[in-house]
Order: sequence, then C-alpha cells, then structure tokens
Amino acid sequence: MMPTTTTTPAPLPTLLSSRPMMSVTTAEEMPSMPPPVCPDSTSTTSPLARLRIAMRNASFTQMNAFFDAFLVFYSDEHLSEEPSAEERRLEYISGWEGAGTAAVAADGGAAIWVASSDVSRAIATLTCAWQVFDADDPNQQNIPEWIAERVNPRGRVGGDARLTSSAEWQSLSSKLQLLGLQMMHVPTLLDTLWSEEPDPARRRPDFSKIVANLHHMEYTGMSWRDKVSAVREELRAMGADAMVVTALDEVAWLLNIRGRDLPYAPLLKAFVVVSAREVRVYAPPGKLSMPVREALAVYNCYTNNCTRVNDYVNIYADLRRATETKILIPAAGTFQRGASAAITQSIPQNKRLTGIISPIIYLKAQKNEAEANGMRKAHLRDAVAMCTLLNYLEKQNKATMSEVSVAQIVDMTRETQAGYVGRAMKTRVAFGPSGSDPDYRATPQSNRRVFTNSTLIIRSGGQYDEGTTVVTRTVHYGVPSKEVRRGYTIVLRAVAALATLQAPSSLPAAHADPVARAPLWAAKQDYVHPTGHGLGAALNRREDPVVIDYRQDKNLHTLSEGYYITSEPGWYEAKFGVQLGNVLEVISKSNMYIGFREATLIPYEPKLIERNMLTDYEIHWLNAYNDRIRKIVGPELKDQGLTDVYYWMMNKTVHIEPLATAKKHTSSSATLSRALDISFVLVGAVIVQGLLSLNGHNRIGEC
Amino acid sequence: MMPTTTTTPAPLPTLLSSRPMMSVTTAEEMPSMPPPVCPDSTSTTSPLARLRIAMRNASFTQMNAFFDAFLVFYSDEHLSEEPSAEERRLEYISGWEGAGTAAVAADGGAAIWVASSDVSRAIATLTCAWQVFDADDPNQQNIPEWIAERVNPRGRVGGDARLTSSAEWQSLSSKLQLLGLQMMHVPTLLDTLWSEEPDPARRRPDFSKIVANLHHMEYTGMSWRDKVSAVREELRAMGADAMVVTALDEVAWLLNIRGRDLPYAPLLKAFVVVSAREVRVYAPPGKLSMPVREALAVYNCYTNNCTRVNDYVNIYADLRRATETKILIPAAGTFQRGASAAITQSIPQNKRLTGIISPIIYLKAQKNEAEANGMRKAHLRDAVAMCTLLNYLEKQNKATMSEVSVAQIVDMTRETQAGYVGRAMKTRVAFGPSGSDPDYRATPQSNRRVFTNSTLIIRSGGQYDEGTTVVTRTVHYGVPSKEVRRGYTIVLRAVAALATLQAPSSLPAAHADPVARAPLWAAKQDYVHPTGHGLGAALNRREDPVVIDYRQDKNLHTLSEGYYITSEPGWYEAKFGVQLGNVLEVISKSNMYIGFREATLIPYEPKLIERNMLTDYEIHWLNAYNDRIRKIVGPELKDQGLTDVYYWMMNKTVHIEPLATAKKHTSSSATLSRALDISFVLVGAVIVQGLLSLNGHNRIGEC
Repeated sequence: MMPTTTTTPAPLPTLLSSRPMMSVTTAEEMPSMPPPVCPDSTSTTSPLARLRIAMRNASFTQMNAFFDAFLVFYSDEHLSEEPSAEERRLEYISGWEGAGTAAVAADGGAAIWVASSDVSRAIATLTCAWQVFDADDPNQQNIPEWIAERVNPRGRVGGDARLTSSAEWQSLSSKLQLLGLQMMHVPTLLDTLWSEEPDPARRRPDFSKIVANLHHMEYTGMSWRDKVSAVREELRAMGADAMVVTALDEVAWLLNIRGRDLPYAPLLKAFVVVSAREVRVYAPPGKLSMPVREALAVYNCYTNNCTRVNDYVNIYADLRRATETKILIPAAGTFQRGASAAITQSIPQNKRLTGIISPIIYLKAQKNEAEANGMRKAHLRDAVAMCTLLNYLEKQNKATMSEVSVAQIVDMTRETQAGYVGRAMKTRVAFGPSGSDPDYRATPQSNRRVFTNSTLIIRSGGQYDEGTTVVTRTVHYGVPSKEVRRGYTIVLRAVAALATLQAPSSLPAAHADPVARAPLWAAKQDYVHPTGHGLGAALNRREDPVVIDYRQDKNLHTLSEGYYITSEPGWYEAKFGVQLGNVLEVISKSNMYIGFREATLIPYEPKLIERNMLTDYEIHWLNAYNDRIRKIVGPELKDQGLTDVYYWMMNKTVHIEPLATAKKHTSSSATLSRALDISFVLVGAVIVQGLLSLNGHNRIGEC
Repeated sequence: MMPTTTTTPAPLPTLLSSRPMMSVTTAEEMPSMPPPVCPDSTSTTSPLARLRIAMRNASFTQMNAFFDAFLVFYSDEHLSEEPSAEERRLEYISGWEGAGTAAVAADGGAAIWVASSDVSRAIATLTCAWQVFDADDPNQQNIPEWIAERVNPRGRVGGDARLTSSAEWQSLSSKLQLLGLQMMHVPTLLDTLWSEEPDPARRRPDFSKIVANLHHMEYTGMSWRDKVSAVREELRAMGADAMVVTALDEVAWLLNIRGRDLPYAPLLKAFVVVSAREVRVYAPPGKLSMPVREALAVYNCYTNNCTRVNDYVNIYADLRRATETKILIPAAGTFQRGASAAITQSIPQNKRLTGIISPIIYLKAQKNEAEANGMRKAHLRDAVAMCTLLNYLEKQNKATMSEVSVAQIVDMTRETQAGYVGRAMKTRVAFGPSGSDPDYRATPQSNRRVFTNSTLIIRSGGQYDEGTTVVTRTVHYGVPSKEVRRGYTIVLRAVAALATLQAPSSLPAAHADPVARAPLWAAKQDYVHPTGHGLGAALNRREDPVVIDYRQDKNLHTLSEGYYITSEPGWYEAKFGVQLGNVLEVISKSNMYIGFREATLIPYEPKLIERNMLTDYEIHWLNAYNDRIRKIVGPELKDQGLTDVYYWMMNKTVHIEPLATAKKHTSSSATLSRALDISFVLVGAVIVQGLLSLNGHNRIGEC
C-alpha cells in the first residue's frame, strides 16, 4: 500500500481558481505566498483518501493490478438522469450532489468535470482537495489530459463501465490509449469501498425495498403484450431479433409497471431483453409484486407471450450467452444516454446493432387517449395544488418565508392531492438575485428570505398515478418595478408565441425555438437552457425524442399528435429572474399541421403583465387560456371545497379587453371609455390586493 | 447511319401523361385507343433527330465510338444558374427554355428531367417527342433507369462533362455503370451539331462581343490585389496552394471587372486560377478592355502581383499540367454548383482538394462600406423606377394592359434610371389565377389581360453599376375582397416578422424562417419556395452562402453584418396570389446580435392592408418604413422632377395611428374619435382613388 498523505498537490493548470487560492487572496491578502497544502487532500479517512488506498490494494482491485487513477461516474447502470441515493457514487466520493461527467482520483490530485452551468456551484461546494473543470469547455483540460499529467506512461486507469455510456467509455479509453495509458473495467472496487465506509453519515443507503406495482390499463391504454408486439415489429424492420431495454422509463412503459426506485420518477430498477421469442426481465429479487408477476405471466412461461424473470445482476452474463443473432443496443438520444459500456461489451461484437436510438422512444412519446386523459387529470390536480399554494403564499406573512420553507410548502401542498406519488423534480425556489441563475438550487447557506421587493420563482412538478406535471410560475408580493413587469411580459409573449404556433408537421421541434425566443431576442435577452423538451406520462419529466432548442443541430425530430412538451422561457438579470413553464400537448390540425394545447392550467400573475406590451392576438390567447382555467379548474376547486382558492383563481383570470374591441366601444360612446382599461369580473368576495395596476402608458414597440 | 424514323416510341412508363395521351383523351375522347406515333419523334430535321443521327456518326463523335444515348445538360462551363443564349443546349435540343437537370436522347425515345415546380409548364411547352420527369421525385424514373430501359447492356452514353457538376457526373456515371452502361465525356458533338444547324431560327447565337470593363474602387471598396491576398490566406489555412475559380460572379468579384456575357448579371465568361505565385485568367480573346488589362497588370507579368491572361479554352489543358501541388476545386453550395466534372477531371487526382465550398463565397457575401453604399444607391434608383411604374400603372387604362405588356413597361421604366445596366431577372407579371403559381412566367399563350377584380404581382429586379436589386409588389386596381386583403396582410405580417427579427448571430439563417412563416402557418398557408437567400452587389441576384428555408437541414450558415438577403413570402390560392419581396441588409447589433434594415424602399398598397389584423408592433414597423421611404426616396423623386410620383408615394406611405395611441386620444376626448381611423396626411393634390377602405371590423385573431 502506498501512502498518499505525503504527496504534494500538483500545480493547478486550469483557469478555474481552486479553493486554497481563493482563501489565500481574500482572507489573508498574501497573494505572493505559494498555495498551502490542502488539508482535505491529506486526510486518510475521507472517501477520496480511502479510494486512493484501495486503488493500490489487491483485495479491492481483485486482480493483480494496481490503479494509478480511478474514474468515478455519475449515473446508475441505466444511465438515469437523476439516479437514486444508493447510486450516487460521484457524490459519495466528492461531496458534489449535482450531475457531472466523472470524478478522477490519482495520487497527484483529484478533479471533477461538471457542466458549465454547475461550475461555480461545484467550486463553492467541494473541498480544496478537488479541482473543478468545465466539461463543456474544449479549452479546459479534459479527463485523459489531466490523468496523463499525473500518471506515468503505461499506467492503468480503473472505472466502472456499467455506469457510463458506451460512446463515452470508448472516447476516454481511446484518448488514454493515445497517451500511453490503459483503461480497465473494475465493477467492484468502489462499491466494496462504499459498503465498508466507516462513517455512518456517509454509509451507502439501502436499496429501496418498495415493490413495483401494475400500472393499470386505465392509465396505459395498451397492454404490455401489445407494446411488446409493437417493439418486435420495429425490431424486425431494423433487421434485429432482440433488443436490450436499459432506460428505466422504457422498462416501466413497456411492462406497464411502476416502481419507487428513483427519486423523481415512478420507476423500477430493471433491465428487459425483448427478443422475437422471449421477454426476459432482470429485476432485483422480490421487487415485483404478485399482481405484476401475474400480469407478466411469469409462471410457467413457455410461449412468446409471457416473461421470464431473472435476477438483476445476471443481465451481463446472460447477454454474453444470448442465443439471438442481432441485438439492438440503444444509442444515446438527447436526454437518454443509451446503453452502458458494460451492456454493450457483454454482447458479442458480431451480434451488436448500434447507432440507433431505442424504438420505444417514439412509441412512448406518442401518448394514447388513456395516457392523454391521465395527463389531463394529473394537470387538473396539479392546478388545484398550485392555485392553493399560490393563494396561500400570497396571504402568508412574508417575514416567515424563505426559499427553503416555500419549497417545503410546495411539496406539502401537492401531497394533498389524490393520486400524488411524489415530486417530478427537486422543487426549486429562487427569490430576487437567486433568480438570476436558471439552475439555482437553494442550500442552507444560500437560502434567502422572501421579501416584497422582487420576484419569486417556483419550479416544481408532480408525479401522479395518472401522469406527470412540471410547472414554473413567477410571482411578486410587492409593487413590481416597470423593469420586472417588462421582463415578465416578454417571457409571457414567448409563452404565447410557442403556444399559438401552428406549423407544418415536418418542422423539426428544435426549429420552433426561434419563434418562442423572438420576443426576448428583440430585447437582446436569451437564456442558456432549451425552451422545452418531451415529457413522459407518469414517467420521466424529461424524455426524448424532441428538444426545442435553436442551438440543436443534430436532433431534428419532429412533433406528432399526442407528444407532450414543456415550454419554459425565462428572463435572467443580475437582480431578479422570471421564468414561466407550462406543459403543452401536441395536437393535430388538418392539412398536415400541428399545434399545441396547454396541459398546465395555472394562472399567470396579472400585476406582472404590462398590458400595453401585449398584442391583441396575445390578449385573445391569454383570455382563452384564462377561460379554460375557469371552466376546468373552477369546478374542481369548488368540489374540493376550496372556496377562497376559487375566488383567488377567478381574480387572477380576469378577462382583458383587447384594444381593437375597446376602440370599437369608445368610438360609439365616450362613456364607455372605462372599458378601455381591464374590466373586472368580480365573482363573490374578491380580495383585491394591489393587483392589476396595468394602465401604464409605455410606448408600444420600445423593446 | 441508322435510320431513326421507323423506331416505334417505347411505352411510357411514368406517372406523367405525355402529350399524345393527353390529346387523345381530351380532344377525341377515345381513351382506349393506343397512343399514336408522335409525328415529332419521327421528324428528321429537328435537333433531336439530328442528334440521334450524329450519335452514330463518327464524324461527329470524333472517335471510333457510337453512342446509344446522349445526355444534354442545362448549364454552361461555369454551371451558371441562368446561362446565356448561346449556352442553352437544353433549349436547343428540346425547346424547353427553363432550367433542368438534363435531357436524354436515345433511339427509344427522348426525355427531360426538370424541377417539380416546372413539370406542368414543361409538359405544356414540349412536343410529344418528349417525356417529362420530375427530377425531385424519387418515385419517378431517373436518368440511368430510363436509359437502361432503352439501351442494351454494354451500351455507351455520351455527354459533355464541362456542363455538369462533378458530383452529378459521378452519380450518373456510377449508376449507369451498375446497369452495365458506360458514360463518356464528349465535348464536341452537340456543339458541332448546333453550329451546323440548317434552320436559321434555331442557329446558335453568337457569343457576345461586348468587352468586359473595370468595376471601379468606388463600387468595390477593395483592390483585386487585396482580394487575391485574402483568398491566398484562406487557401493557406486550408493547406492548398491554388484554387480554380469557376463561378462567374466570383471571377467578377475577385478581379473587379464586369461584363455583359450573362443575361441577368453583369458577368464575364472567364476562369481564374489563383495560386500562391500566380493569378491566371482564362478569358475569350479580346474580351478584356484595355483599362482592365492595365488594371490587372497583364503585360510583363513576372511577380505574384499581376495576372497572366490565357485563352478561355486552355483552362483544361493548363490544369492538367499545373505545377501547383494542392488545388482547391470548389464544391457545390446551395445555389452555386461548384466546379464542373471536366474541370475536376483535368486536375490530377492527387492534387485535388475537394468537398469545400469556395472561400470567395464568404468574402463576397460580406459587403464592405463601398458596396453597401452602392447597394443603397441602386435601391434608391430602383425605388424611383418602381414608384414611377406603380403610379403609371395605377392611372393607366386597364383595358390596354396584359401581363406581357406590364412586364415590358416595368423594364422600360427601369431603363430611365442612370446607372441601369439591365434586368437582374426575367420580369414576371402575374394577374389573378396566374398568381397561384409562384413560378408563373407569362407566355404568348398564357398571357392574361389585367382587370380590376384581382391581384397583380410584379416580380423584377435591376442591375445597376452600383448594385443589384430585386423586388416584388402586389397591387389591385379595383375593390379588393376581404379574402385578398387578408392574404396580403398576412404576407405583410411575415415581411414584418423577418424585418424586425433580432437574433443571436449564431442562429443559422435557415432557422429564422419559422419566424417569418408563423403568420402564414397560423392560417394553414405555406409556400414552396425559400423565404429568402443571399444577394450579390452588382453580381448575381441569388448567391450563397445563406438561404432562409426551414426545410434546409444542411446549409447552416449564419448571417453576418454586410450580408444582403431577400425576404419574399407569398400567399398562393387558386384564384389569386400575393407576394411581397424586399432586400434586407444584415446589420450588427450590440451583444452579438444581428438585425435587418430594408434596402428596398418601395411602398406597400394601403388598400390591401387589413389594418385590424396588424399588431401595434407591426404598425410601428410599417410607419417607420414609410417614414424612411418619404425621407430617402421623396427628395430623389423631387430632384428628378417626378412631382406626381412624389404625391403618389406620399399617398401610399400615410402614417397609421397605432391602436394604443388611438386609445389614448379617444379616452381624453370623444371628438378625436376620427383619429381612430387612418389619418390622411394629404400633401398637395393627392388623387384619392378608392384606397384606404380599411375600417372593416374583422375580429382580431380569427386566423
């Protein structure tokens, strides 16, 4: 065993300042001193230190090989976007709770590669033992370069090929090879290390014991047998006689089962192999409920209309000896990352069919009538929860509210709705300057109090038995400045532009983006995130194939009737942010056109709308949207006995008179000139609290 | 010599009905009769018949080879979009005056492949000897398939490789090879045949004797030496030590010379080879004026700062023995088709650098200050001409007007402007139902009289010393229906959407298209042509690199300051059409944004504008445009003494009160309610003729 405690940290070759440098310059103001040795990097009990020791210890490596560097990947064996707690090896080893490409430990240091948008948060979160690199910046050192600088030629690099995609593994492996280094698949080392973690606070969480249950025909609208038939047909067309289903939402969709294994989606950790003759399910023992086993016809399976259930861990060995001749191994899409390197390598090379994304992506994206009904119900429940929440927050004593407490109230409010399963995403609340970062996540350190002088953005979503919702609303509890109203209204115009877009069905979804962004671009504003993406039905809140992003030049998938997408434009300034996010259902129009219908039915904030900046087309759209909220959400609020929420909703959905109509009124009679301002339709005891101050006379077209 | 007169025409295997079939069914109503032998196909004096004979005649083929089929291509040796009369071999052989891929003659028949949009016109134009195929329809027979059906295996197919692109030649050649046929380059056969044409009406026109002249620094802003240096720098970066400049607009741009060899662009037929040490010009003898020869430093050329002039026809032989080691052979762009197969094949394979478009495309697209000034002057002159024309037509006795006569008046009116060189395109005028076809060209047969009951579309453009213009306007000489006003207004909204778009400079031009088309799509209308494309400065009216077309998925070029593009949305119905076309200058905005400024300054038709369908943003834009016309074109009209045209222009550019402003007025005083309608600013003796009937109360948002 080589001691690592005496190793001097290598010089920092990157543009990013690391922690010790920062503390020297800011706290002690002695910039000419050399950086001190980082105490964290000399610890012997941290997971990083224990990994460095294990890399050189044959009882961990389980081969006569020591490793000079070790790669720790972010995801699980399904390359899930948001893996469960017991799969968060990257967080265990580094303390970084976000997503990332990988962390690398070597004797000469430790480094982590994260997305551009996460870099500053990662620097703030991680200890001085870690260097942080921007994985999206080609000018920064990449993983192979970093390793090669610290490891001698002919060195060995370990990593778990189950946890990264085939393409990424190959890319790393070949780049390392060019630098004289060898990359090896080591499935056991880190998991063993974690399972023997001495610190109880860091110990690996147990894998969820909650069993998976049937997702009934009422919600799915199609039996698993029909789905398997559809997949088999696609495979035949591709010349394959089998495929391995690795993405968890595809497994859940295909078998009509739902689990509780992932944090934000009702999924079961399992693999499926669909062949022309068999359906083989690989699930952890005891995870399938009796009704599921019965529905899947697990017992005495002798035909191609039943399933064989095997232990989860056997997938790799079984693939090695599979009798099928051409097996589709799904390639990466835009959000889905495809099959892992270990899955790919388990299948003999001559049997692999690669380079094609899973055909299930298309089947799953196109929601049938039962799924669409479910989505409607889920969004109705979500609307009730969100109206309840927004009404509650508006009347609450603001002195008691913080970003973290509001997020808790959001989650508690959703829990009141029948059919609620859990969150569809981590609820993210941002007040004032926190709103400048679209990816902001409140931490105990960053947590801001909510005041009445800026915007509050609430980003959240719910998983219901019937479907998945995500919604973003921006509110303000004081008198908004003209600047804030302008930002909100321009974002609302972007929402309107996409919602009212009607386009030939041949238009790639990505190319609809300029229509949505044009109102922001007119003000020289843009946002780094996509405008939207596909959404699952009681599945992932982000799913392939479509993405609405003008920077996308590969994903040219088009929209089809029954697809659900999000529309989430935002406005980010240093002092505040605005984001509005809805779910849209893609509807078919005659003559090969598609259009959209809002699935989300939650009011906008009238006092943030600069009415003079809206065109009559937009006012028409907004009135129609508000009418739908009243017609659909109104009765449900009454049924649930939420009278005050009902009045709140009615107050936020007041009809706005278009200018053209207003004009007609006045030209016939001057006494009607009051109708030019927004007419209130006061239903019951409306609490008018400083809203609708909308008659500012801004010049139209000034932006 | 084999007689061709006794050959029975082969059965017609295509979807397209050919002439004899059509005449049988329509004229004689005897659909069960077999198609009669087409008299044209048995002629012995038609060019087609003479070609069939020459294919088997060694004195024509100039080798011991007979040809079983012969390909006739559309373009010239530069693959120009609109070749000059003496290059129109396709028209000579077939009678088809439009563009096309190729015509093929075999003993078993003759066929021509044209673009989808030309198919019906080609069928109407050509004699029964010709089958017409849609070159864009993969389900129709293609050229190799058609030949293989008529020619025995091991047969030979001739064609002139100077007249088609390398990619097309290779594609044809390899497909024919798979079918057992051999394709051969025969540069002399058809040209000899044409030069010996006995019918004077069909004889090959003489090549223009007009010499090319200098295009002065005042217009170019950059010396040819600086341009050559810039090109050399680009070549160095690509690892090439030479390039062959084949596109005529590139030759003209590079050498700062202009000629009269092409019908719609001031170009000289010449090739240029730019190498690190030399500039070699290949021009027909006597075509370079003395000032040009002096400017190009032709005499005693011993440095790399002068040019060597050679005879045009020597380019192929010279390329074969070129001393350069890596020669860039331009690949096809979107409009420019790259180097011909003969040019490519003249360069030894190991010296070819292929697959890259000409670097001159980018240099040429970005107009410098002198060129931008020239474009402004050209558009000012064009505005005077078009205002004069539209005023004249409006006041003219409509009974005397037809599509053809209007087109003549358009051309005559432009000729009155100083600096006018010629048309930038064939002037195309379409009245009423003719307007349903965006590609409509009036013929003596189709020529419609102009009435007052529908729209008249005028498409034209001018070449001026200073720059190039194209413009499309739609007018109406009666009381337009609501349907027509709606179409016109929606097209105007599309024009406004693109003109006011401000976008990140990273947005591919093609992806701006959905913003322009969204107003049409909202009415489930679309048009088959691109919305726009690049435009040259005293060069081609259509130039690379940019195209604004949402169906484009390869050309992802972005827009840069100084680019000029067209914006030409249209609305096509069975009974009428509307098209508006402007030239836009790309301007740079701060923060890496680009925007547009109209170069075209010609009024729209107020009586065709459904004012209630316009948003205040659009009204603001329209008013600003009209203000610019008044400020810039107004003084010029006065200077040229065109008083009545000046009043006409003032009348068409009346300020429209935005609704928001109108509202403010009325709410303060009911007596101002007249201000709600469009306020006339009557300057001088305005002739008010049934215009501005704009107060219909259409519901906003109904489309």
